[in-house]
Amino acid sequence: MTQSSPLYTYRMDISYVGTHFSGWQRQPNALSIQEVIENALGKILQQEVIVLGSGRTDAGVHAREQVAHFRLPDPIEPLKLLRSLNGLLSDDIRIYELNLVSNDFHARYSAKGKTYTYRIDNGLIADPFMRPYAIHLQPQLNIDAMKDAALLFEGTHDFKAFANKATQGSAAVDSVRTIHSITFEEKASLLEITFNGKGFLYKMVRNIVGSLIMVGRGKLTKQELKQGFDSFDRTQLPPPAPARGLTLEKVHYD
Amino acid sequence: MTQSSPLYTYRMDISYVGTHFSGWQRQPNALSIQEVIENALGKILQQEVIVLGSGRTDAGVHAREQVAHFRLPDPIEPLKLLRSLNGLLSDDIRIYELNLVSNDFHARYSAKGKTYTYRIDNGLIADPFMRPYAIHLQPQLNIDAMKDAALLFEGTHDFKAFANKATQGSAAVDSVRTIHSITFEEKASLLEITFNGKGFLYKMVRNIVGSLIMVGRGKLTKQELKQGFDSFDRTQLPPPAPARGLTLEKVHYD
Repeated sequence: MTQSSPLYTYRMDISYVGTHFSGWQRQPNALSIQEVIENALGKILQQEVIVLGSGRTDAGVHAREQVAHFRLPDPIEPLKLLRSLNGLLSDDIRIYELNLVSNDFHARYSAKGKTYTYRIDNGLIADPFMRPYAIHLQPQLNIDAMKDAALLFEGTHDFKAFANKATQGSAAVDSVRTIHSITFEEKASLLEITFNGKGFLYKMVRNIVGSLIMVGRGKLTKQELKQGFDSFDRTQLPPPAPARGLTLEKVHYD
Repeated sequence: MTQSSPLYTYRMDISYVGTHFSGWQRQPNALSIQEVIENALGKILQQEVIVLGSGRTDAGVHAREQVAHFRLPDPIEPLKLLRSLNGLLSDDIRIYELNLVSNDFHARYSAKGKTYTYRIDNGLIADPFMRPYAIHLQPQLNIDAMKDAALLFEGTHDFKAFANKATQGSAAVDSVRTIHSITFEEKASLLEITFNGKGFLYKMVRNIVGSLIMVGRGKLTKQELKQGFDSFDRTQLPPPAPARGLTLEKVHYD
């Protein structure tokens, strides 16, 4: 191992309300969660630290459990660092866990799968308490039709029709993904649609939910959705559902 | 009935997240929920409308179901008005119900009781998703001790020791109140303390919770709490718990 090799790898489990952030990934002229955490770590450890997440979440998307890692040349005391970090970070980001892990751990490449939940407040009047975490839709959605249409997506498919335009234009990006399950849970007037999969393309969940909502409204049939899915063309299908309703619930590792 | 008598009484059921308001009651130089609703009604109906609530909630306190009434000289179509109101109001206030009721209905004087819930996030790390609706406390509270101490308050008592200073100074204000029950519910690391009573003094719930928290922390014994309760002196007991954790859950009518 060369002198510059990092010797200590730390895994962070992070929860955040994404409302006031430009998403996970660092970018110019916008406040990202990655940047805020990197800056806090830099201030505490007095060195530049790169924090790599399991994947990006869009502006406004939340995470109950995002996972990231960083590597340091010298060991630190995880619990002490966790407390200092939470002291510096704003209340809408919390580091839940901070642990020394094996050097072959990589938040993105070691991930075996992810769970996302999309929340729709389908009540007659919006619930103001759920407003930050769900979108409000009226009239009543046909949930049975949505469940039936969602069956199209379970399994391994080419999801190019649900990829963003950058992916669309690039022949190099593999848009084949595997969704293990899409489940629907109704809690009073709150509808939760949970996606379990090996991995997801950028905006894929929101794009799929955008289509499922149109099915639930009776404005898109399962047949039409299947045609759009088979066309591999984003423009054949409805726009993505708003970011606010989406939460990264968990990243799965061995 | 004289010419100026109002002939039509409407009951509103209102839900709000209190974070950005100065409380229910109209006051100078601060944005109250009463004012916001009165202004919206005035704009739609082109007349001054007085909205009377079941009682005030403090700055930062939430309501899942606040009830208010207003009286008009001419009838209106409730569902249409409800929709117009929700269209004008910000997302953190929603009118759930709007109904024509008997003219002897009064949101405050007809109320038979109220339910308040105080929420404490007792997890090791604060849950950012619950942040707007709960306070975070560490270390672990002794909930059994809190439950035992709460028994002091069930029934009919003089709650002067839990009244605000204005009430304290005034011999004219009757500080006898009846609490039917105080129940504790633990949902993972969230503790919900629910008060059912015929009526509550201003800041009474938050003052009681402030004392119960000190019991839960082992910094106040039940015996000391009883002495403070019997002293009728606010200054003998701990300060109120923060507004953010309190929600008016329901106002009860016959």
